[in-house]
Amino acid sequence: MSKPVASFDEIRAILREVPGPDLEAGKAAVERQNQLTKPPGSLGRLEEVVAWLATWQGKHPPSLQRPRIAVFAGNHGVAERGVSAFPPSVTAQMVANFVRGGAAVNQLSDFAGAELRVYEMALEKPTQDFTLGPALTEEECAKAMAYGMMAVETGLDLMCLGEMGIANSTSAAAVACALFGGKAKDWAGRGTGVDDEGLTRKIAVIEAGLAANPEARQDPFKAMQCLGGHELAAITGAVLAARMARTPVMLDGFACTVAAAVLFKAEPAALDHCLVSHRSVEPGHARLLDIVAKRPLFDFDMRLGEASGAALAIPILKAALACHTGMATFAQAGVSEKG
Amino acid sequence: MSKPVASFDEIRAILREVPGPDLEAGKAAVERQNQLTKPPGSLGRLEEVVAWLATWQGKHPPSLQRPRIAVFAGNHGVAERGVSAFPPSVTAQMVANFVRGGAAVNQLSDFAGAELRVYEMALEKPTQDFTLGPALTEEECAKAMAYGMMAVETGLDLMCLGEMGIANSTSAAAVACALFGGKAKDWAGRGTGVDDEGLTRKIAVIEAGLAANPEARQDPFKAMQCLGGHELAAITGAVLAARMARTPVMLDGFACTVAAAVLFKAEPAALDHCLVSHRSVEPGHARLLDIVAKRPLFDFDMRLGEASGAALAIPILKAALACHTGMATFAQAGVSEKG
Repeated sequence: MSKPVASFDEIRAILREVPGPDLEAGKAAVERQNQLTKPPGSLGRLEEVVAWLATWQGKHPPSLQRPRIAVFAGNHGVAERGVSAFPPSVTAQMVANFVRGGAAVNQLSDFAGAELRVYEMALEKPTQDFTLGPALTEEECAKAMAYGMMAVETGLDLMCLGEMGIANSTSAAAVACALFGGKAKDWAGRGTGVDDEGLTRKIAVIEAGLAANPEARQDPFKAMQCLGGHELAAITGAVLAARMARTPVMLDGFACTVAAAVLFKAEPAALDHCLVSHRSVEPGHARLLDIVAKRPLFDFDMRLGEASGAALAIPILKAALACHTGMATFAQAGVSEKG
Repeated sequence: MSKPVASFDEIRAILREVPGPDLEAGKAAVERQNQLTKPPGSLGRLEEVVAWLATWQGKHPPSLQRPRIAVFAGNHGVAERGVSAFPPSVTAQMVANFVRGGAAVNQLSDFAGAELRVYEMALEKPTQDFTLGPALTEEECAKAMAYGMMAVETGLDLMCLGEMGIANSTSAAAVACALFGGKAKDWAGRGTGVDDEGLTRKIAVIEAGLAANPEARQDPFKAMQCLGGHELAAITGAVLAARMARTPVMLDGFACTVAAAVLFKAEPAALDHCLVSHRSVEPGHARLLDIVAKRPLFDFDMRLGEASGAALAIPILKAALACHTGMATFAQAGVSEKG
């Protein structure tokens, strides 16, 4: 990717060239697991995630020396419609909080020994209110995707993705509805905590957005352009760039998974290098996880965003890898194998 | 507890004196959570576990400076009946593996920054085969409980409990059936991985054990004595002693939860200071979790025992506590609160 992409055709061209799994590396992981001093398979998903890391890093043993947490922040014109429990100014205030180290993701990142990067995306320039037409132009959307791609550098062994943007659960629900059908109310949730009236408003706004943007249902990238936002498009781009770079991806909650699902809709194998860290309280997330066929690692009733769930998955992966690399084999330990 | 207990009456006397929750400490945790820069409740169970630690440590903020992982190991006469996929000699071999640092729990303990203690309980002296009568005498069983109590020292802020013992999922299933009814097949699972024939044998052995020990159904401590084992009784004792010492307890999988459930059957509030780390693959575990009304933290398809799930919960609790103590409040960060 020598020059940034600026059109959906360029994104589609990259998507056609994504590498497949390294089945040999995955097999090497499974073979080692089966020699370790435990009944075969008894570490369950801890074994599965190590094989996944090996498969998508393309090496065995896999590494977790340099995980990066990338949080993209953007503002939404639709926030003016009263769809969030918080005012739009909170996006910039929370970015400042990330920079000063005061947010949940800062503590989770420090605890995980990860590198946290916050990507502020023209907060002073929200998207257009999508009830009046497309949130972004194609060029703006493609550039936001390209910006997200640049968050993926060589040498990272895991990308944890997340977002911050007041009203972006409205935007994400609208994108999901355009991508996968159903009604606005199937995808709308309480986000940061709107009351019943706020939820009713949110559903009406999503319906209006879909009505105002008929082309959103015709193409997954158009769905992002018409109904999404800068930070969501950046996640789409980051997921794609990570695949090209052989960097496994840990997705966060609802908005993050919707952003990734744009690629899934275009090419179902495009998310094979991704795991979903957790099932969000946001009801659309469970629905979406069924569609993209991802079983989340955990369900802690979280609904914060800002990559908090993805960040919390890092210690779990590290613990899994510690078992994989540190345990004795049956032969080393002189333990009798299964009779 | 100046002298070790040697009868069930002494255990029952302790059980009548267990301290209740420190609701003030729990409330202080919730009040701080609500000031932190996130929508109220949006960290879900991460908030819940911190309030739980505060409530049962009896202080706010709670600490996780000195978590201990205690793994009790015992041998079972019933192992001779071919109910396990592994030979009985594996219990001692795995204890040696724990001591040399080669098992899963060693890696998980190191990763969690916890202290691992392995309590080997007369491996050369298995319990009696319970199909022929009580596995232990009352005195042996009470002494095993007392031994488990001694694993709880002053100054620990979390006890993670687990077990190692070939055939102990058979023993645990028999205890659970005696405590809570149902049929042997409702509680029997594949343990370390028996085949269909082994599972059929296991069910028959549990049925024979229940038939040979009618008093097991009449009293929860008798259930442990007649059908349990040294390492399981030790866990029962450790759970009780931790409550007396205001040390929260993290339970592991099926066998560990059964051992704790002996106290629940005697006094339903006796496990209020306990969380269950994970839902085991062993099918009896889900059934038991419903009965003791515990929602496990995670479900990673694990079925290893040796406190592996409980150990894996430590980093999650530490991450939760890091958020609790390290995050900025709305006031500190200048972030607008919910409108």
